[in-house]
Amino acid sequence: MELIRAVYQATSPERNPETLAENIAREQSLELTRALIPEAIAERLLGRVLDVTPLAENRWALEIGYPVELASGQAGQLLHLLYGNVSFYPRIRLTGLKLPESLLARFPGPIGGLPDIRCWTGVPDRALLMTVLKPRGSAPSVLADLALAFARGGGDLIKDDQNLVEDELPAFRQRVGACAAAVEKAAEETGRRCLYLPHVAGSGSHLERQLDFVRDSGLGGVVLCTWVMGLETAAAAARERELMWLSHPAMAGAFTEPEATGIASAVLLGTLLRVAGADISIFPGRGGRIRSGHADDETATCRALAGPLGSLKATLPCTGGGKTLEQAVATARAQGPDCAILVGGDLIARHDRIQADVAATVAALQAC
Amino acid sequence: MELIRAVYQATSPERNPETLAENIAREQSLELTRALIPEAIAERLLGRVLDVTPLAENRWALEIGYPVELASGQAGQLLHLLYGNVSFYPRIRLTGLKLPESLLARFPGPIGGLPDIRCWTGVPDRALLMTVLKPRGSAPSVLADLALAFARGGGDLIKDDQNLVEDELPAFRQRVGACAAAVEKAAEETGRRCLYLPHVAGSGSHLERQLDFVRDSGLGGVVLCTWVMGLETAAAAARERELMWLSHPAMAGAFTEPEATGIASAVLLGTLLRVAGADISIFPGRGGRIRSGHADDETATCRALAGPLGSLKATLPCTGGGKTLEQAVATARAQGPDCAILVGGDLIARHDRIQADVAATVAALQAC
Repeated sequence: MELIRAVYQATSPERNPETLAENIAREQSLELTRALIPEAIAERLLGRVLDVTPLAENRWALEIGYPVELASGQAGQLLHLLYGNVSFYPRIRLTGLKLPESLLARFPGPIGGLPDIRCWTGVPDRALLMTVLKPRGSAPSVLADLALAFARGGGDLIKDDQNLVEDELPAFRQRVGACAAAVEKAAEETGRRCLYLPHVAGSGSHLERQLDFVRDSGLGGVVLCTWVMGLETAAAAARERELMWLSHPAMAGAFTEPEATGIASAVLLGTLLRVAGADISIFPGRGGRIRSGHADDETATCRALAGPLGSLKATLPCTGGGKTLEQAVATARAQGPDCAILVGGDLIARHDRIQADVAATVAALQAC
Repeated sequence: MELIRAVYQATSPERNPETLAENIAREQSLELTRALIPEAIAERLLGRVLDVTPLAENRWALEIGYPVELASGQAGQLLHLLYGNVSFYPRIRLTGLKLPESLLARFPGPIGGLPDIRCWTGVPDRALLMTVLKPRGSAPSVLADLALAFARGGGDLIKDDQNLVEDELPAFRQRVGACAAAVEKAAEETGRRCLYLPHVAGSGSHLERQLDFVRDSGLGGVVLCTWVMGLETAAAAARERELMWLSHPAMAGAFTEPEATGIASAVLLGTLLRVAGADISIFPGRGGRIRSGHADDETATCRALAGPLGSLKATLPCTGGGKTLEQAVATARAQGPDCAILVGGDLIARHDRIQADVAATVAALQAC
């Protein structure tokens, strides 16, 4: 039988690690004591312990195999299967995930991803530079001027800050329209296209009308706060309109940052987002304003997003969290060309030097 | 100015607690260094530190006020505002939340809630008994028989297990239809209505067709995995069809269980769910199979769900996580009448005694 293979790290387990592994396998698959599960159902659907290995003093790796049917071919259900109830168990962290080919084949993955973003921006082979429009409360013209200066300087990607949220549609249209026009104007001047991604939030018809406006404006994609909206909700909202989506990691630190609980960044902000179809995944990189609390490897997340995975397109990894323009070049050297670097506040602080400093940084990235 | 008041607990802060509080206030509101925020925007939208109090050795309470405009009247945005980026800060936990009346007035809260559930079941004043249909893989007739026995015994609420997920609509309709018919049959025999809540998962049109089927079948509500689907997505899906929704806590342990990070149960599975409009909130209670890893108070969550909050109806608190029928009565004594107790595996293990044991338990709850 084809299995989804998940590795959990158990720290200071309250019981025998083998017993704990059996408990997790049951909890996450059929949630019933063994004696109450009919044999035919157990054979088909019960999770099974594949391996139990000591990692360090009081720490174990528990590998569990889940029958592929349990994911129901849905990204949300896959997330749920891997960590739903076990999130309440003490000191269990999901650290590894391997999906069988048959399941990967059921997920479309990114509709555009790294290849289409390279095509859109006309940048075949270097690391990409991204900025963010903020703060909330700014007049649309102020945000549009920032977008214009960045795009004129040859910047590649612009995202709305995830705090830019409007209660009413006209305000959303006015702001997004102004920024889109600025990016369009720069493209006419430079002959290069910068990809502008507006932030879209909310639910129901308010959400749908914002998404429709973005699509009808000819923009290539949106920013979605995946862990607020829901993984599969975000994917479906973008895919139904053939929009690319950048996944913002807000709330995800609750999973990635604790040492003994949660889900490793490479799984949550890497494999799961790619499977669900995110075209860009932002995560806080090392050395920015937001420092990661533990040793999750930035490189592992990049690899999960852009390395081989079935026939899925690569998701563009983007490291952010308070990087400076100077750090952009160093980060590109460390991560290689298949990544984007997000620079926000440091760019805004440069005022009338934005265009020139962006141009210099892009040239340096090109030279990497 | 009206403020959303949030209390964060900081453990072993890496910097001066006052400075940390200022950083959080900026990070969550405008995400920009103070010097770059225009004065008019800061006055209107910048988060502000209200209080910094030592709680214990290396632990502080940081109270921050956010201008009410920042929530944009959206439950998802409120969650995001309270914990989005700060989820990546080391050892910060959201422990308290107070919403101003003007914001509460913008949220509809539960459409049915505790009063309508009492009306539906005809139980005016005692604690309610809930069971769960499982395991996945069972024939619809097996699940329907379980529902029939429980409802005949006078049980009040039946939820689908959150693992019951179908890839295709016909299988969903067959299973839900069989269970609904069983509950209907019991109602005709007993003259009492048991509230059956099918689990609905997925996204896009697959999700919508399941919800439409539930509504068209005349059922009162659904089970939604809020932290998989997204808080506001869940609320909107149910509300658009005037269905009640039971919020399952899968994934939420990542927030509630760590001691130094995340969000307290009373805030996440209490206030925020009620504001978003959940009619029932399940959380793992003390003494079940899933033991809570730290001292979040079950009573505090019940109070957040059912105590006074603007003019919002009460959300029915439901304690679960592996309770037995015997524990049901003790739990009702501890929590009072305004709660439900979920008994799953322990009930299934009783086989042909289910109806009689449910009847005895309901009588004991009545006598409490």
